[in-house]
Amino acid sequence: MLGNTFGRLFRVTCCGESYGKGLLTIVDGVPPGLKITKEMVQAELDKRRPGQSPIDSPRKETDQVEIVAGLLEGVTTGAPIGMVIYNVDTQKIHVDQYRAVKDVFRPGHANFTFFVKYGEYADWCGAGRSSGRESVGRVAGGAVAKFILAREGIEVLAYTAESHGIKMRPMSYEEIRANYRKNDINCPDLETAKKMEEDLHKVREEGDTAGGIIEIVARGVPAGWGEQVFDKLKATLAQGLMSIGAVQGMEFGDGFQCATATGSKWNDQPFVEDGAIRFKTNRCGGLLGGMSNGEDLVMRIAVKPTPTISKDQDTVDVYTMTPQKLSAITRRDITLLPRVAPVAEAMVQIALVDSMYMAAAYDSVAKLDKHWKEIGRPRHKATGQNP
Amino acid sequence: MLGNTFGRLFRVTCCGESYGKGLLTIVDGVPPGLKITKEMVQAELDKRRPGQSPIDSPRKETDQVEIVAGLLEGVTTGAPIGMVIYNVDTQKIHVDQYRAVKDVFRPGHANFTFFVKYGEYADWCGAGRSSGRESVGRVAGGAVAKFILAREGIEVLAYTAESHGIKMRPMSYEEIRANYRKNDINCPDLETAKKMEEDLHKVREEGDTAGGIIEIVARGVPAGWGEQVFDKLKATLAQGLMSIGAVQGMEFGDGFQCATATGSKWNDQPFVEDGAIRFKTNRCGGLLGGMSNGEDLVMRIAVKPTPTISKDQDTVDVYTMTPQKLSAITRRDITLLPRVAPVAEAMVQIALVDSMYMAAAYDSVAKLDKHWKEIGRPRHKATGQNP
Amino acid sequence: MLGNTFGRLFRVTCCGESYGKGLLTIVDGVPPGLKITKEMVQAELDKRRPGQSPIDSPRKETDQVEIVAGLLEGVTTGAPIGMVIYNVDTQKIHVDQYRAVKDVFRPGHANFTFFVKYGEYADWCGAGRSSGRESVGRVAGGAVAKFILAREGIEVLAYTAESHGIKMRPMSYEEIRANYRKNDINCPDLETAKKMEEDLHKVREEGDTAGGIIEIVARGVPAGWGEQVFDKLKATLAQGLMSIGAVQGMEFGDGFQCATATGSKWNDQPFVEDGAIRFKTNRCGGLLGGMSNGEDLVMRIAVKPTPTISKDQDTVDVYTMTPQKLSAITRRDITLLPRVAPVAEAMVQIALVDSMYMAAAYDSVAKLDKHWKEIGRPRHKATGQNP
Amino acid sequence: MLGNTFGRLFRVTCCGESYGKGLLTIVDGVPPGLKITKEMVQAELDKRRPGQSPIDSPRKETDQVEIVAGLLEGVTTGAPIGMVIYNVDTQKIHVDQYRAVKDVFRPGHANFTFFVKYGEYADWCGAGRSSGRESVGRVAGGAVAKFILAREGIEVLAYTAESHGIKMRPMSYEEIRANYRKNDINCPDLETAKKMEEDLHKVREEGDTAGGIIEIVARGVPAGWGEQVFDKLKATLAQGLMSIGAVQGMEFGDGFQCATATGSKWNDQPFVEDGAIRFKTNRCGGLLGGMSNGEDLVMRIAVKPTPTISKDQDTVDVYTMTPQKLSAITRRDITLLPRVAPVAEAMVQIALVDSMYMAAAYDSVAKLDKHWKEIGRPRHKATGQNP
Repeated sequence: MLGNTFGRLFRVTCCGESYGKGLLTIVDGVPPGLKITKEMVQAELDKRRPGQSPIDSPRKETDQVEIVAGLLEGVTTGAPIGMVIYNVDTQKIHVDQYRAVKDVFRPGHANFTFFVKYGEYADWCGAGRSSGRESVGRVAGGAVAKFILAREGIEVLAYTAESHGIKMRPMSYEEIRANYRKNDINCPDLETAKKMEEDLHKVREEGDTAGGIIEIVARGVPAGWGEQVFDKLKATLAQGLMSIGAVQGMEFGDGFQCATATGSKWNDQPFVEDGAIRFKTNRCGGLLGGMSNGEDLVMRIAVKPTPTISKDQDTVDVYTMTPQKLSAITRRDITLLPRVAPVAEAMVQIALVDSMYMAAAYDSVAKLDKHWKEIGRPRHKATGQNP
Repeated sequence: MLGNTFGRLFRVTCCGESYGKGLLTIVDGVPPGLKITKEMVQAELDKRRPGQSPIDSPRKETDQVEIVAGLLEGVTTGAPIGMVIYNVDTQKIHVDQYRAVKDVFRPGHANFTFFVKYGEYADWCGAGRSSGRESVGRVAGGAVAKFILAREGIEVLAYTAESHGIKMRPMSYEEIRANYRKNDINCPDLETAKKMEEDLHKVREEGDTAGGIIEIVARGVPAGWGEQVFDKLKATLAQGLMSIGAVQGMEFGDGFQCATATGSKWNDQPFVEDGAIRFKTNRCGGLLGGMSNGEDLVMRIAVKPTPTISKDQDTVDVYTMTPQKLSAITRRDITLLPRVAPVAEAMVQIALVDSMYMAAAYDSVAKLDKHWKEIGRPRHKATGQNP
Repeated sequence: MLGNTFGRLFRVTCCGESYGKGLLTIVDGVPPGLKITKEMVQAELDKRRPGQSPIDSPRKETDQVEIVAGLLEGVTTGAPIGMVIYNVDTQKIHVDQYRAVKDVFRPGHANFTFFVKYGEYADWCGAGRSSGRESVGRVAGGAVAKFILAREGIEVLAYTAESHGIKMRPMSYEEIRANYRKNDINCPDLETAKKMEEDLHKVREEGDTAGGIIEIVARGVPAGWGEQVFDKLKATLAQGLMSIGAVQGMEFGDGFQCATATGSKWNDQPFVEDGAIRFKTNRCGGLLGGMSNGEDLVMRIAVKPTPTISKDQDTVDVYTMTPQKLSAITRRDITLLPRVAPVAEAMVQIALVDSMYMAAAYDSVAKLDKHWKEIGRPRHKATGQNP
Repeated sequence: MLGNTFGRLFRVTCCGESYGKGLLTIVDGVPPGLKITKEMVQAELDKRRPGQSPIDSPRKETDQVEIVAGLLEGVTTGAPIGMVIYNVDTQKIHVDQYRAVKDVFRPGHANFTFFVKYGEYADWCGAGRSSGRESVGRVAGGAVAKFILAREGIEVLAYTAESHGIKMRPMSYEEIRANYRKNDINCPDLETAKKMEEDLHKVREEGDTAGGIIEIVARGVPAGWGEQVFDKLKATLAQGLMSIGAVQGMEFGDGFQCATATGSKWNDQPFVEDGAIRFKTNRCGGLLGGMSNGEDLVMRIAVKPTPTISKDQDTVDVYTMTPQKLSAITRRDITLLPRVAPVAEAMVQIALVDSMYMAAAYDSVAKLDKHWKEIGRPRHKATGQNP
């Protein structure tokens, strides 16, 4: 029943369901002095809002955010930020649709496991905390993280690299950055994007849905972030990304290609550029020993096809344990890719701010005494050590 | 500097380096009444011990474990188990070899990022906590987890599914289980294993190393394990597996294949067998909504080629920031696969016991009052509620 | 900047300030199937609401709670509960009063340390997260915990045992329970309560404030709750209670009296009553080895006088670092006792539910296999152990 | 079964029992570059070693520590420090003495609650993890913390302030520091110490034991340490101190005296000294808003009399549930004070280093970009923000 908090020093806690009154996000560990506005958060939420194109679900949610805590005259104070997003599209007609099928397992859906875990009380209406709707909270938290990272010169982009087997061409970071928000599928390769969309329209007509791959790049992360052994940056990012619904796999850099490679081909060779270490290639995706190496962090996640399809499916009734047919459902996302991309962006942003704090904590230690003086912290200083 | 503890309710804490005196593992959250012996732990440690075949590093470590805490007359008491493994192969000749190259970055190694993080004090001798040697602690902890899981009828197998592009054939769980520990490469497909080994001998002769894929199957996990949203079982397993050195990617079930699939093909259809829900296929790898669905948990991890190779490589000197040549190093693992497999087994075992406790905590809640009575816990019971 | 979450398995996360828009509380780890209503939460919030008597601050807050998440048709689903409480008394006149003195330290207040920590951005308006207003979140979380404990036959009472040196007489649990909510000072000894109130009116006339002691009793906690060593129930309760603002000390049972005692007098002697172990005395306050022993948990906390007084005080200007006079402030609580008592009740309730889950997790382990069967969790069971 | 780890960013994990082979301590979060020696750790361990005076238990333990991990050529590397202390006084005769009484509850002891929690498997031999012997791990961890604090000009002293009702006179910090390790009772008031010891000899002759009060002062802590709301420094210190066995209560500064005070008497008035804020008095014990205010942190803990006494006591047999007599036990500490003092010192040291890291993490945030540059962390910097 737990699981609604992410982070060690920068912590995002969320709640809320599709058919409840609203969603709350509390972000703890926010530095003082930031001019965070609701418009900034809204801009991020608008990226993942449904009903924006023919390949999304037609659900109508405005996702208007209100910041109710953590700001004094528009500036953060070191207090946690509290955000409220009320639901609007919770009409009885949709509730009743869910009620009608609440006793049958929907193939590919979490309602089976939630039923096993929570029994008759499991939320049958819009999937509760297993709904993609929970990701509103992730994106709201990610918006705050994005603001903090921007001050450090760090940015994160997530975009569709592959849809239903159709792949984008290799592109530079700058080109990706300039184009990835220009179409419904969030693919920076504008030519290929058209093909992806055409293909998805066909998939929709067949009553089906499709999967794909989201690529995420984080640029500007200094080398040396991440902890040892179990808390490698690699592991923290993996936890964040694999916690997103519908994600079936993830890889860093060239990922699974390493399985066919030899060491002499795989190792990225370091060299010196402008007095700093760089690497000639980035097969490892910006991670050595599980910590950031100063190059772009590159991650790819595999997103499964939306499980809700417009075809009849075999299923089982929970209570009678008898075979059933689940009828076609028309209100659905044809692909989850454009909805998952902003969520992946958010999770990487949150994980990076959290890791930045961890790095900062330890970096500081070698020169703390100097530090307390610099910032003029009053104290009654001891003159020696105890015997 | 943190990162040496894994788990929420079942917690493994480790320390130790290749060239220090030894390694310690403390396992907290061990149930009372278990007859855990050092022989059991030794058997697991022996699986990942180096120097066992021509494809391993020739480093000689006996990895003899001693259990110094947590047992009373051979039985656990609810106290944490403490284990000590002393290093034996720490001769000056090897220390001096490391000393000679301590100022140059080894391509593909963590010594670059550890230097950035810890500066001149970073452990240059055998890679410190970024060495594969730290995984001794994981395996010792995993041995305790394995014992606990066995009582629940749960077992975990990890084996080589692909080496340097050579893949095992599809096999049944029983066949895998019977054969996966029969050769140096830990591949249950005995025919293919021979080919893999021959190929690796060639790779070695070329002074190179190779990557591959480890598959992990956990059978017997009941449906409904894992928490919501950020703490899905999927995310906990990902954190555990991606925290292992050399792992570049991971997937559940058919993983990245979902990127080319449609929903009607991808969804696993439920049916009823002997009064219980089963699924006709297991593309999702035993996870729905990020929780276990009662089918086998199937995971695959991509393991990069050993970065240490017997060829000259371009590199950089840390202090002078000038280009250098790193000479060929002969003492190395040709492939990390047989060494990583027991570590992956251990991490999945640890993550599962931890998740089992989480599940148990909440399951119990609905009937706790009954429970306290059953186990006869004395208490001075209140007769009503406060006003 | 962290610190707004309490609990391991039952977790309360809060945000909100006195002069922001509102306060949010998210309670994670709530069991499914509970009929939690906003009226129940409101009843607890009403206990700590200001402006209810001449000894409270005249601040007018209605503290109306709305439950926006975690309920489906009025019943919990295993999802976190989300609560919103909007502020109403945030008039400009009060903001301007705070603004006028924002650069001087208020003796006894947190604004000094918050300024040191957060600098110019520290919340100067109503004390931000160091205001007693944050305790609204604790009480809202405590209301949920109270509901869960009631099902287990556990109840918690907190009441004024001493005010400004005036002590209540010894009373039975039943008598305390029947009377402790009958007067403004929350003292169950009705005669003494009158004296306390008269004394406080005198204190108010003198422009002063006063301290006192709150006693908390938890009845019905089964023996054996609490973990080992660092996570003793004693330590968890201490953390919870000492995290409340204005609390200067705490003790269990006869507490500091042990300093003058001998072992033969101090030890509580066990005996058997109705087949269960009881203790003849309860000097230890219901804790042995830091775990619950089945007797009433008895705790006492020392609450300092409200630091805001209606007398001029010496202070210092933050920016000029020059001595200043802080004028008398008339809007204040004469004593914090009746406001702190419900907060102490809440913290003990939250800590107990959290500890209950911990106990439940481990209790279950010995019979889990039986358990999975009982609750019919489907699974594909392994037939043996891996070799 | 959990509970053997303390700390968030500086983490001490321990295991080991009185009659097992030994005790392990792993300290995670240790900065690189420290010359920590086993002699330093030994010096702290020697403070709490038993058998050093007629008022201690005659148990003979040499408590020789070995550092097996975390050092490279005598210097820390950022890896966790691992320490081993083998038990020596585990003779069969003592084991058999414990075996003889294993089925009866020892009044005042944890064996009752451990039996309830762990059942027949609870450690009956020397009290397992509820034995004072576990505090060896705390002191070993505290020794590392002490070293780190000393570099920041922070020191912690713990000494006997009261024994069996006999109180030390008020003394200056310097005087306390110079004298507190000069006698068996660790009381810096040398005259009073003699009276305390004479009194304790009498108590011993009567077959009894006695309680008392330990005072702990931490000097040199800068203002502004500690987090908000639940993670106040006050709460973290309380958790640490109240987790020590035998501690019945704690207070900061003048503590429980606040219950009889008025605000005008209680508030500590700030003034400026050498350009820094100081306070004229320190009734609050160095804490405002639960954070450090730059003055000495002053804490007092009440230590109960040793429960083991040399008099017959009434008790109960676990299995038969019948009344029993527990015979007098002669091997015991007459007072726990001199044994608890070093443990209290250790816990405050550990909690302070942990809080220092937390403070450092957030302090750094405002100037991180500058920081990454300063320390020359290589990175591929993004040139702008994503759209």
